[in-house]
Amino acid sequence: MNIGVLGCGNVGAALIQLVGDSSDEIEKRTGLRLEVTRVAVRSLSKERDVELPAKVFTTDASEVVNDPAVDLVVEVIGGIEPARQLVLDSLAAGKPVVTANKELIANHGTELFAASDDAGVDLLFEAAVAGGVPFIRPLRESLVGEDVSRVMGIVNGTTNYILTKMTEEGWTYAEALAEAQSLGYAERDPTADVEGFEAGAKAAIIATIAFGKKVVAGDVSHEGIADISATDIAFANRLGYQIKLLGIAEQFDDESIAVRVHPAMVPDQHPLASVRESFNAIFLEGEAVGELMFFGRGAGGFPTASAVLGDTVDAAANLAKATHASLGSFSKAKIRPIDDLHYRYYLNLEVRDRPGVLAAVANLFGKHEVSIHSMEQDPLVADGSQDAQDAGLARLIFITHEAKESDVRATLHELRGLEAVNSIGSVLRVIENPD
Amino acid sequence: MNIGVLGCGNVGAALIQLVGDSSDEIEKRTGLRLEVTRVAVRSLSKERDVELPAKVFTTDASEVVNDPAVDLVVEVIGGIEPARQLVLDSLAAGKPVVTANKELIANHGTELFAASDDAGVDLLFEAAVAGGVPFIRPLRESLVGEDVSRVMGIVNGTTNYILTKMTEEGWTYAEALAEAQSLGYAERDPTADVEGFEAGAKAAIIATIAFGKKVVAGDVSHEGIADISATDIAFANRLGYQIKLLGIAEQFDDESIAVRVHPAMVPDQHPLASVRESFNAIFLEGEAVGELMFFGRGAGGFPTASAVLGDTVDAAANLAKATHASLGSFSKAKIRPIDDLHYRYYLNLEVRDRPGVLAAVANLFGKHEVSIHSMEQDPLVADGSQDAQDAGLARLIFITHEAKESDVRATLHELRGLEAVNSIGSVLRVIENPD
Repeated sequence: MNIGVLGCGNVGAALIQLVGDSSDEIEKRTGLRLEVTRVAVRSLSKERDVELPAKVFTTDASEVVNDPAVDLVVEVIGGIEPARQLVLDSLAAGKPVVTANKELIANHGTELFAASDDAGVDLLFEAAVAGGVPFIRPLRESLVGEDVSRVMGIVNGTTNYILTKMTEEGWTYAEALAEAQSLGYAERDPTADVEGFEAGAKAAIIATIAFGKKVVAGDVSHEGIADISATDIAFANRLGYQIKLLGIAEQFDDESIAVRVHPAMVPDQHPLASVRESFNAIFLEGEAVGELMFFGRGAGGFPTASAVLGDTVDAAANLAKATHASLGSFSKAKIRPIDDLHYRYYLNLEVRDRPGVLAAVANLFGKHEVSIHSMEQDPLVADGSQDAQDAGLARLIFITHEAKESDVRATLHELRGLEAVNSIGSVLRVIENPD
Repeated sequence: MNIGVLGCGNVGAALIQLVGDSSDEIEKRTGLRLEVTRVAVRSLSKERDVELPAKVFTTDASEVVNDPAVDLVVEVIGGIEPARQLVLDSLAAGKPVVTANKELIANHGTELFAASDDAGVDLLFEAAVAGGVPFIRPLRESLVGEDVSRVMGIVNGTTNYILTKMTEEGWTYAEALAEAQSLGYAERDPTADVEGFEAGAKAAIIATIAFGKKVVAGDVSHEGIADISATDIAFANRLGYQIKLLGIAEQFDDESIAVRVHPAMVPDQHPLASVRESFNAIFLEGEAVGELMFFGRGAGGFPTASAVLGDTVDAAANLAKATHASLGSFSKAKIRPIDDLHYRYYLNLEVRDRPGVLAAVANLFGKHEVSIHSMEQDPLVADGSQDAQDAGLARLIFITHEAKESDVRATLHELRGLEAVNSIGSVLRVIENPD
């Protein structure tokens, strides 16, 4: 079984090494001999830590796809084009494809799944969701009859690292981001990570597979973590919560689907709260199975290559049996807008410290039918609030009962107009403990 | 695809309901129509919450196995016989088998796997390891090329519930056990749970599949939780650990395998430390993938039936394609005895409170080459130690550096002979944080 690999960065190089190291064991267990016979690279002159003869490499990716000796194609280039066309060409040539490309699957997944069905060969993409963490396979196979209501994931290791360091080391957002960049977790332009776009692409893929409906990256509403302050973290911790950036995919009784990425307060006893550093985890709630969580390394060459290898063996075995695992057809999901969702909220307001202000604020909540669960005035001196006290300001922290997003937004809009309100800090949704 | 179900307890009844509820969805996704057509029960007169015609039921299990209209057999009777013979008969008749029977697989797994290969049909047993938690499928498929070094599992919900309540509510072991019994988590005779036999069977299955060698329940060394005291829990917590009953399967460089069940101190930041109540989790360490954890409900009718259903659909799909997933052949594992393992240890001694005692104790540690990492005299008044102080006793808590089990046992043996040592409490292995 000859494998053509498109791209030879971290993941491609790790995959080539894994195939070399484990091909005997895989042959023993499956009867299939895997070998990487062609590799498309950007530059032939770059030094690589890969033990393959020079003639294996080419800068022309289509040469790999069209090589009649290549049975199966692994796409680890990333991005939409030329990856999309190369995947389509491979499938059309009857070659199964394994990809780690979240952007591609999140934007063109259902089109590619249909092409895979037309060709009767596999298109597998475990590594596109949470790196080395097995999720798509258990979801599709182990949970085949399961009625999944919600999936919540910490699917971006960079932001989880930043939030962990802010929580455990007391670093500011800027300090934690700088460290993440120096460790190579975050790009020089960190937008895709910290604004939740990367997690949003993964959430779109999760929603598509969990609910069997077409959800694309553009359907996902986003909020990032750049505005999370030390005060928010301190309050969250004192109230028994960890702040995590979650990708959440949820299906309602009317079959509408909501998919969004935002920071949330996760109770300390929730399994997602204990996911630290750059680890990923996906928490699933199903009717029969109850709560499940899948935890592990969501990035990195070898963990990601491990998932690519699992898919590669599966696709090769199916190819040998002339069968494939169909994902079925996907109708467009009915997306429920975030305005229509209900949450409990954490709100952090800085107000003038004088009589009557709380009444004015509470009045606005009541007007918009947002019911208050608890309120406290800042007992902490964190995040420069000593200065604020000197300036005659106080901090009010509210936790609401479950309220409609649009009502909360309307409340916030009017609060901003109140002279007594100096500023509004973070607005965080509060996740409940599992039963 | 007609399914015969052997046993109609919690899991069997839940499976019948799940098949009924999800068969349309499964047919849409796989093209296979599942139907439960025969069910073997102990008594026909018992009321059941199952919507099937009376003629489906029989008290003769072999009638289900031998019914020519039954394509696939689900075994949820439990125990070794007659389950073993019924599974063998089903396989011999060319009928795939799905089982949730940990005792059967832990004692006769490799014999049954060989029978499945001879017959060319599946024998699947996901539900036998951690109820609804997908582990065997990800291990076999997603991690097919992975070099797994160690798997640690909280695979017994009853003992995890007891330890959680002792930790969080301050209950004694007896109080927590009584509550577990009243909730139906623990049997009237709780031995199989609290002494680690049930977890040991699961650890044997995990070791067999993770390392590809035959490991049976009798290869697993056991220690239970009945001797864990409030003092141990208090010390563990203060030192930053949670006490958990772990099943651990480990493979060494010489390919020897150690499998044991014992309570252990798990660092607060380790993902296993956050597994509370009756939840299960399996933590795996692999060369390429790094650390993974699979978390969920390890027991209960519907979670377990969810795993059985996933296997059933898989086995049915393979049967339809006249293929099956071979587990391969298994040679007998070389078992490394627990005496040869190395750990850090927590030791809790009650000694006469007088000069020279610590020197005498430390001398014995040194003699057996057990090096002390830290020692402290009891600063807590817990677990009746006020009485002990009045009696001129003190408590010494040691954490050792990594030491050989046999050396620690030899030390303990001599310590018991010291007149100054009043009693020796728990001896707990200490687990390290992941990197």
